[in-house]
Parts: sequence; C-alpha cells; structure tokens
Amino acid sequence: MVKVGIIGSTGYAGQELVRILLQHPEAEIVWYGSKSYIDKKYSEVFGNMFQIVDDTCMGENIEKLADKVDVIFTATPQGLCSSLVNEDILKKTKIIDLSADFRIKDVNRYEKWYGIKHQSPSFIEEAVYGLCEINRTYIKNARLIANPGCFPTCTILSIYPLAKEGVIDMNTVITDAKSGVSGAGRGSKIANLYCEVNESIKPYGVTSHRHTPEIEDQLSYASGKEVIINFTPHLVPMNRGILATSYATLKEKLSYSDVKALYDKYYKDEYFVRVLDENVFPETRWVEGSNFTDVNFKIDERTGRIIMIGAIDNIVKGAAGQAVQNMNIMFGLEENMGLKMVPVFP
Amino acid sequence: MVKVGIIGSTGYAGQELVRILLQHPEAEIVWYGSKSYIDKKYSEVFGNMFQIVDDTCMGENIEKLADKVDVIFTATPQGLCSSLVNEDILKKTKIIDLSADFRIKDVNRYEKWYGIKHQSPSFIEEAVYGLCEINRTYIKNARLIANPGCFPTCTILSIYPLAKEGVIDMNTVITDAKSGVSGAGRGSKIANLYCEVNESIKPYGVTSHRHTPEIEDQLSYASGKEVIINFTPHLVPMNRGILATSYATLKEKLSYSDVKALYDKYYKDEYFVRVLDENVFPETRWVEGSNFTDVNFKIDERTGRIIMIGAIDNIVKGAAGQAVQNMNIMFGLEENMGLKMVPVFP
Amino acid sequence: MVKVGIIGSTGYAGQELVRILLQHPEAEIVWYGSKSYIDKKYSEVFGNMFQIVDDTCMGENIEKLADKVDVIFTATPQGLCSSLVNEDILKKTKIIDLSADFRIKDVNRYEKWYGIKHQSPSFIEEAVYGLCEINRTYIKNARLIANPGCFPTCTILSIYPLAKEGVIDMNTVITDAKSGVSGAGRGSKIANLYCEVNESIKPYGVTSHRHTPEIEDQLSYASGKEVIINFTPHLVPMNRGILATSYATLKEKLSYSDVKALYDKYYKDEYFVRVLDENVFPETRWVEGSNFTDVNFKIDERTGRIIMIGAIDNIVKGAAGQAVQNMNIMFGLEENMGLKMVPVFP
Amino acid sequence: MVKVGIIGSTGYAGQELVRILLQHPEAEIVWYGSKSYIDKKYSEVFGNMFQIVDDTCMGENIEKLADKVDVIFTATPQGLCSSLVNEDILKKTKIIDLSADFRIKDVNRYEKWYGIKHQSPSFIEEAVYGLCEINRTYIKNARLIANPGCFPTCTILSIYPLAKEGVIDMNTVITDAKSGVSGAGRGSKIANLYCEVNESIKPYGVTSHRHTPEIEDQLSYASGKEVIINFTPHLVPMNRGILATSYATLKEKLSYSDVKALYDKYYKDEYFVRVLDENVFPETRWVEGSNFTDVNFKIDERTGRIIMIGAIDNIVKGAAGQAVQNMNIMFGLEENMGLKMVPVFP
Repeated sequence: MVKVGIIGSTGYAGQELVRILLQHPEAEIVWYGSKSYIDKKYSEVFGNMFQIVDDTCMGENIEKLADKVDVIFTATPQGLCSSLVNEDILKKTKIIDLSADFRIKDVNRYEKWYGIKHQSPSFIEEAVYGLCEINRTYIKNARLIANPGCFPTCTILSIYPLAKEGVIDMNTVITDAKSGVSGAGRGSKIANLYCEVNESIKPYGVTSHRHTPEIEDQLSYASGKEVIINFTPHLVPMNRGILATSYATLKEKLSYSDVKALYDKYYKDEYFVRVLDENVFPETRWVEGSNFTDVNFKIDERTGRIIMIGAIDNIVKGAAGQAVQNMNIMFGLEENMGLKMVPVFP
Repeated sequence: MVKVGIIGSTGYAGQELVRILLQHPEAEIVWYGSKSYIDKKYSEVFGNMFQIVDDTCMGENIEKLADKVDVIFTATPQGLCSSLVNEDILKKTKIIDLSADFRIKDVNRYEKWYGIKHQSPSFIEEAVYGLCEINRTYIKNARLIANPGCFPTCTILSIYPLAKEGVIDMNTVITDAKSGVSGAGRGSKIANLYCEVNESIKPYGVTSHRHTPEIEDQLSYASGKEVIINFTPHLVPMNRGILATSYATLKEKLSYSDVKALYDKYYKDEYFVRVLDENVFPETRWVEGSNFTDVNFKIDERTGRIIMIGAIDNIVKGAAGQAVQNMNIMFGLEENMGLKMVPVFP
Repeated sequence: MVKVGIIGSTGYAGQELVRILLQHPEAEIVWYGSKSYIDKKYSEVFGNMFQIVDDTCMGENIEKLADKVDVIFTATPQGLCSSLVNEDILKKTKIIDLSADFRIKDVNRYEKWYGIKHQSPSFIEEAVYGLCEINRTYIKNARLIANPGCFPTCTILSIYPLAKEGVIDMNTVITDAKSGVSGAGRGSKIANLYCEVNESIKPYGVTSHRHTPEIEDQLSYASGKEVIINFTPHLVPMNRGILATSYATLKEKLSYSDVKALYDKYYKDEYFVRVLDENVFPETRWVEGSNFTDVNFKIDERTGRIIMIGAIDNIVKGAAGQAVQNMNIMFGLEENMGLKMVPVFP
Repeated sequence: MVKVGIIGSTGYAGQELVRILLQHPEAEIVWYGSKSYIDKKYSEVFGNMFQIVDDTCMGENIEKLADKVDVIFTATPQGLCSSLVNEDILKKTKIIDLSADFRIKDVNRYEKWYGIKHQSPSFIEEAVYGLCEINRTYIKNARLIANPGCFPTCTILSIYPLAKEGVIDMNTVITDAKSGVSGAGRGSKIANLYCEVNESIKPYGVTSHRHTPEIEDQLSYASGKEVIINFTPHLVPMNRGILATSYATLKEKLSYSDVKALYDKYYKDEYFVRVLDENVFPETRWVEGSNFTDVNFKIDERTGRIIMIGAIDNIVKGAAGQAVQNMNIMFGLEENMGLKMVPVFP
C-alpha cells in the first residue's frame, strides 16, 4: 500500500487526486493538505466526500509529511513546490509536482515565462517530465516528477508521432486549444463566476500562455530541433475537458494510412491513448472523467497541411490522473491501476 | 460471474448500465440490445466506449437472450417489457425492468396514467418494486423487478422515514422536483435540443406526470393510508441530477433532533443514503456519477411544516445504479459491489 | 429628457439599468456610480458597452449627484440606500431603490430578517412599494420607490388575483422558486464560480430567505389577512430567469374558466403580464431579456389545490426593467416606454 | 414602411429576423412563412412572441408573396431560394437570401462543396454578396442579396484589412472557429440534443466545411490572388456566438500601431465593427444579441505571425442582423436603423 500525502488537496486537481486515489486498490491518503481550509473537515469543503472521507485538512508542513508518506503530490500554485523541496525530503519520499516548477529545464526560460524566481534550480536537472507515454523509462526511477500541464499533455500527445518521425515542418505548428473552466482553478475571481463564463467563449494568454515553452521544449526533444509554435488557449463554458487542434505543413505528401501507421507505431500498445477511426474526431465528452487521450488527424490535400486533434479530461489525464499514472510507474504497480475509469457520459 | 443482457442499451440509462457493469467485478455483459442501432458497433453509438466495448448491437429477441444470460435489464419505453415477459422466460432468467410496466400494482391505475393497455397484467402481482432500501427482503428472491422511477426514488427516500413513522400529515404532501435533461431520453425531439433547454427552466406534466401514482402508492404503503399528493417536475439545464423538495405539515411539534433520529433509524446503516448534517442541504453536484441519495430536512416553526429534500443522479440511483443494486441483492453479492463510485466533481 | 444617476452601476442589475436606459428615448444617464471601479472606464468593466458608453465610473457622492439628476437608482447592497437618503436629497431628486431597504413596512421585521439596523426608518412609511401593476396610483407621486425583489415580483404577480379575490386558503400557500445565477450578484465568491454552479441545482435560504417577509406582506395586503408562507428558492445553472411555482388549496371548487376570468380581470390590460393559454406554462426562456411576467395556473381536482406559475427575467422585470417602469410612471411617460423589448431566444 | 415577407420564419435565424424587424421603425412583417408549422400560430412555435405576434404561419407561395411585399427574406436550407427565384419575382420584389445559394460565384465550386445542383445559376452573377462593410455600394442597387454565412462574416471581417493591404502571406492563413449551437439549426437531430452538446467541445467539417470556399473567395477578392485556407469550426456549448481565431505570417515586421492603423483605416467609421483596445480580445459575451463584430489582433514576434480574432452573434451579424442591415441599405434607410441593440449581458 502506497502512503500518499497531498499538498493542495482542496483545489480542483487536488480533489480529483482524492477521488482517484480513494478508488485505487494500492494507495492510501494519509494527509489532506490545504492552506485555505486547515482544520476544516475535508467533506465540508467537498460535499461529494461526505461519509467517504472523514479526515480534516492539515497544513503544509512538508518535513512532517515526508516522514509519513511514500509520495507527496503537490497540487499547488507555481513556486510552492520548488520552495519546499530539498535533499532531505527527497531522501525520505518521492514528489510528484503538479505545478510547472520542474517542467522547464532552462531556469531562465522558466523565470521569464512565469515571472517568478525559481527557488530550487538545482533540482531541475534531476526532475523527470512525467508524460508517461513518452518518458516511462525515466519515470520508473525518478524521485521528483514534473507532472505535465494540461494543455501540453493534450497537445504533445496529438503531435508527438509526427514530430518524432520528422514528417511535419515543425516551424509551421500552430495549436489552437480549448479548455473547460476547472482549468482556471477554484480561486474566487470575478472572471470565473458562472455568469461571466457561461454563454461565451474567449481566447486568453494570446502569444503569452505559460504552457507554450513547455510544449515547445517537448516537441523540440521529439523532433531534434528547436521548435517555436503559436499556442492560443480559449475558455469554453464547460466544467472539464481540453480539445487541442493543431495545424502543421507536411514535409511530403502522405496518405491517411501512412500517417495512421505512424500513430499506431507509438500508440497501439498504449492503454490511455486511443487513436480514433478514420474521420472520427476527438470530442471532450467521450473522455470525461477518464484518463484517456483521444487523438486523430486529417490530411488536407488542398493546403498540404495536416490537422492533429486531441482531447483529454483536463483534471484527469491533464492533472490528477496522469499524476497517479506516474505514481503507478514509480512504485512498480500496473500503470493503469485505479485508472481504468470508463468515461462518464452524458 | 453474472451473465447480463441489456435490452435498450443505447438510451442514456442503458449506456449507464453498460458503464457501471463494465466496472463491476462479478458481471459480464453478453448482449447489447438496441432496436435503433442493430448491427452497429456499440462504440460507434457511444464514443466513450471506444476500445472498451468491442461488441455490436443486437436485436431484442428475448427468447434467444434468455437462454444466454442470468439477468436481463430492460431499459426501454413503457409497454415493451410487459409485452415480452412470460413464464418461460422467467424460468430461465431474471428480469430487472427499468420501465414503469410493473411498478403500479393496480392495472387500471397504470393504464389510466400511462394511457396504454398493459400486456401482461398477470405478472404485476409477482413483480417486486425494487427500491432496495425499503424492499430488500423481497428483492432477494424476486424473478421480476420493477426498478423504481427516478423521481419516485428521490422523493420516496426523502420522505419515507416520516411517512412510515406517521409524523406528517400525508394529505399535505407537495413535491416540487427538478431534473436534468438526460431524464428525457435520447430521442430526437425539438423540445430537447440544446438551444431549447439551455438557459431556461420549465415545469412539465403539471398535475399529470406519470410518476405521481408511483410515489403515491409507495407513500401509501409506508403510511398505511391512501395518499394523494401534488407532484410537479421541472426541467433544468444540466445533464444529470434530480432534486426533490417536498413539503408537509408536521402532526405535532418536533425538534431537529427528534426528526434526525427518525431519519437515522432508517438510514444509519444504509450505504447509499446519506443524511446530511444539520442545515446542509442536498445539491445534485455532490451525488453526480454515484449511487448515493443525499437527504435532509428543515423544520419551519412559523408554518408548522417540514421541508424534506433529496438529491440523486437520475441515471445512477434513479435508473442504472439502482438496477445493479437490485441485481447484487438478487444474486447474493455485496449490495454495493461495483457501485462505490465516488461522486464526480466538478 | 429624464436625467438619471445610478449608484451601483457595475453590478448585474446596475449594468442592466444602463442597457435599458441607453435605449430609452426619454432618459439620459449622467452618472455611472461604482464603489469598486471608481475612475475606471465603464466599458472596461463591461465590454459590451465598448464604443457605446464613454463614461468613467464615479463615486457615490449622493449630495453632488442629487444636484445633477432627476432620479437616482440605487442598485446596491442592503443598507446603503437607507444610509444615504434624507429630506434634502428627496427634495431635489427622486430615488428608486433596488435594494430591500424600504420594502418592509415594519422596521423590526426588516431588521430581524436582514440582520442589520435600518439607517432611516422615518422614510419607510413614505416609500412606495413599486410593484407597478398593483401600486400604479401610489407610484405616480412617490419620491421614494422600494423596487420589489425579484422573487417577490414573480411570486406575487402569479398569486395576486386569487389572493385578492379570496378564492385560495392563504395559509396553504407554498412557493418553490428557481433562479438563474445573476441573482447572486457579481461578487467574487467561490460558491458562484462556474464550476460550482454548473451541472447542479441546490436549494438555499431554506425557511429563512429574506424575500419571504416581502412576499408575505404583499399577499397580506392583497388578501386582507396575515399570511405566512413557505418560500424555498433554488439556484439553477443559467444566467437569467426566475420561475416560481406556487401551491395553494382552493376554498371551493372552481373551473378553469372561473379562475381564468379572475386572472383576466386583473391582467387583461396589463402590457407586461401575459396570462398564457390553457395548459401552456411559463418557461423562463420565453421572457429572457424582456420586462414580461408570464403567468398561468392549473387546477388539480384530485387534491383540491391550484398550482400558480410565473416566470420573469430576474434582472429585467425582477430589477432594472421594473425600476424603469417605475421611473416611467413617476415622470408621466408611457409606462412601457423603452421597455417593449421582445424576449431574446434562444 | 418596408413590407417584409419571411420564408423560413420558424428556424432560429427566421425567428431572429422576426425579433429584429418587430422592433424596426420602418419595417412591417406581413408574411410569416414556414413549411413545418403552416396554419399554426407563430406564437405557439415561439412562446416569446405571445401577445406580440398574432399571425399564423403561412406556406411558401413565393408568387403570391411577391405581390405583397417589398422584400423577401429566405431563411431556408440550401437549394430552396435558388429553386424559387426568377425574373418575374425579382421584378416585383427584392430578395435577401440567408442561405448559401448565391454566395459562390463559380457554380461548379458551389455544387462541389454543397453536393447539390444549383437551380438558377443565371442569377448568380447578379447577386451581390451582402457583407455590408465591404460591398455597401453594390448592395444599394441590388435586387438579390446573398447574405453572408456566419463563419465567413466573422472570419472575413477580422482578416479583411490585412488581406486588402497585402501585409500577410495569404497562403499561411488558418482559421480556427468556434460556434454556439444555434448555428446548427432547429432540426430534431440526436447530435444537437442538450445532453450531446452540453459539457463538450468538438470539431466538425474538418477540411470540408462549406463555409471554406466562401471565405476563400472573399479573401481572394480582397487580396487580389487566389487564397486557399484551412478552416476548422468547433461546436461550443452555448446558444449564440462565433469566435474566429485566425493565424497568418506577416510579410514584414510590423508594429502594433502599424497594424492598428490598417484596421482603423477600414473600420473607424463602421458602426458595427469595433476594433478593441490593445490586448483586449473579442469574447462572444460582449456581442450577444447585437449586430456588432468585435475584432482585434496580436503580433507574435517570436513566430512572425499575427493572430486575428473576431467575435459576432451568429444569428444577428451572422444572419438576421446583417440581413436587415442589407435591407436598410437597399431601401435607403439609415444603415443601423433598428439594429442599435446594446449587447445583452449576462
């Protein structure tokens, strides 16, 4: 049984970690951390947990926590995990960080896009980018996991085979993404009130969204050359889900089956990546509540471009689910243990 | 392993049965019945099932089906199950009928409210009303279960202790209920189009909704006298969930703890009924995707009335989940096996 | 041209006042008051007003404002208007208060339900309750209008004819109401975040909602006896709209046309009250964006009760629209001037 | 007073035409055409029109209609208008066709993308593409207007100044668009049921959407060279609104103010096009219910691309509103007469 502590258990991703881990046969949550709700019953913060979780929210004393658990999930704002981590703690426990602190290898790049000073740059090198389908081998022995961002997970997985195989011109990649509102977190901001979000769609972070360098880095590693992309997220009036629509120019003419073969090469044995049938495109409703990434593509012979589309549940595969997938790999468990939830529809 | 056949597997309740049974350790679906999608792959009808269900929809030949399975779920429109059932079939297999065909003991009453002729009145007597928390004993040995309606499940469970204990004037019961749109089914009707339902709330079936006699019958059995109520359902722009707000006059002055004791008397050992803390009222978001019924009450000393509130997920506890709960009881399995899903939020 | 000042122009009701008054042929807004956005351009707070309103938000100096305008609308939290009003101001300008400060004639009752001390009880007597269809005569010459609450407007108008005519037992009145989220205001509270409200319905203020005494008072005036009711509001995932479903016992058997005649007696010449056709019930989508109140009823012969249903747009007829209707009456304009907006659908 | 007939008045665009024209000071609707609801009261089809429209739906006898009206709006599926139009009719009345029949000048191209035979190709040449801001001069004297599609209106207006001025590489244009559900029409299809659309986003018509050639044609005219683009629409769970996010490579380095000057050159006197302030991007909520097109852009120096964003209400500026704008121009009325609706929020 893996003993788990969660720092930031009262955000949306934290709560989803709780939901998933409660149904995981080999995990036990022993610490519900929360800065805002300390000493409050967890089930008073999230009524769905009534008579399921009897615990009270605790603070974020990571030293004390590290003595008690095998793994700590930090589902916290940028900057917190990097301010807490140190060698002592990593000797006692593993850390899976759901924030962006250890995702970007170049600390200057991190500091520029995030606008904050990194508190523990010495651990960046060691941290493994926990995109399980790509970095499985490295995750196995990692002490510190940088759990990928929601948009990067969806975007990278839908582009990866073609980037890796070098069949698209990486300088032409444009990703137009759409996210449900839970991605914005549980903070009380006017912009996220029901009436502000409902019945509207808007772009945000145009040319400046902080997931851009993360996507670029991973696509650079995959393609072997520096990649600069356009990435534009949009806010959609729905609770969960991310859809990423990416465009790129094919280097040469390829048929549907040529490209399909490339996707299958990377994903045919992946439980959590579903390459859909020809002309069936990802829709977020079909992955809701699950750890699946649905991907597909369409070649446009008129323009010579390929359109690559991916869909995930942003707080499962885009956050808590993938974090647990990382935990499973790190602890030698079946990778999909506790994660085989059938998507919930409608 | 219980072998299961589903007639009507391509409606919303049918699909939820599939979702639940796929994650049930002791059930195996061997027949995906569907009149509308015969010979079509099930995962083409419901994209969430891609790479999870490989089966193709089959017709509704109940004779053939009865030879293959231990239990048949009929998630079909009123009138179908009663036209199919017969002694031969019930000798071979059990039936859990999610339609209303066997819920009303008085066939004239059924025919009047439903406006159709009952096709097999001889089986009405035998059928057990599958409200598990109330009729557990009878369900155990039943061959034919009348799985309760969604509104009745929510309404009855929130009123039952007080009806049974005789502390409310049953002639004063008024239930004002609110339902998500999945309750209206997956038929292509203009009234259920997105733009017709979204950003609106409306009452329907005012004084004439067909769940009225079902609620009345069960409250009559509980209270030992004939009960006539007002029941008004409303359509709410959300996928899932039912909230029932019921009003009744208390026969005598009772305190919060008096009434709380009555709810606890009936529900303290019930896994699926959660009596909330004082002044915390049911909200559908806290039960979504789960088989829980959340209930609570509030005494109004000014008017002498008590307000009883219940919330369920209409296609889980209000349909597929309760159907599986019935199956568990009938086959001697743990009653909550495969049904301990933590509610999904947000 | 009526010169208008708005205190609290950056809430939802305040913004709707602006939207309506901008399209009103005889009104001119000269003061956009806002405590939170002082010195900010109004169109930066509400992007819909870009290139339409060029003004900047001003503070709430009511003395200065009173010198400039013919009427002040206060769309502010409870307690503010009563702390600002005085004889000097009322000598210079009229006030239409959208808060509850002057709606309850009994100051003790106000203080008990609202939990605050009334700051200017001496003006309560003078204030006219601005439910235009009922109090038109008194509104004409009023200096201070207590603009009705959203739930009271909808509830009272749907019950009024039967209360007035004495055909229902007023002790049996129960109102179960449902509101869109704009009714909760534009404050940044976690409870009103998109993900908290979406896909859920919940009751609130059970037995204690502050619109209860307001409804009771008006029904008492109408029926000539003290009325105590149950009133339970629910929060519905939609931006706008209130639906009120009220139940009462008929004192004697009445036919549809008997009751219809009573509704027609009061409403047949009312532009803003639409008594729907038999068996057609109010739905909020049909009044959205308009100042209409749709009402209808259904007699239940089985229980002897009548169900009375009303629908309004909570921020038009339930707030800003009715406030302008009051202004029209007070300034001798056509009562529906600037208010003939056709409901927006879908 | 312009006498108006509407063929197809019971779809969403038709109903919006009615809503707008009812509030237009110089228009009078004399014919509510509808194939599906013939002889039914219009206000029974759309409850918002109760006590506002007393008319009954009539058939689609265009000969008879042409004798009675000054202008006919056809808000009908593709192929209908072209099957009805002839010289006789155009001698008696003007036609504003909201379908695609006369938008594409190359009949082969029309037939290929739409998959139907054009019924009156001889009128294609004469028809004027009614994008008012671009073709105002030609609209003035037109007898037959091809009212632009919703996506094309939004996309073209947000790209037009840069296409016209030749500052972007037209071969690099990619438009990723998002639409509310009313764009899908009022037909009873399972795909458009509330539960299918709600809580999901999906792409559709990938590489094959029929608005593609329309956008391409207009951008070709603007830029003076043949343009081929990628256009991908997505369905968003909201009633109204289109957001189009377009990407293109700048031919040379331009500053914010360089580009702003180009937008202003074309739009500074346009009532219905609002070029937003720097770094403020269009959101559909700010145009809802109005005829405005909000546009803005952002230069990405890292990639050398410019992102052009536009938002409209798809059934106002994207259909009925623009149709009335065309009518105003054709009949010598103020172009914004009856169209100055302030956007409705929330």
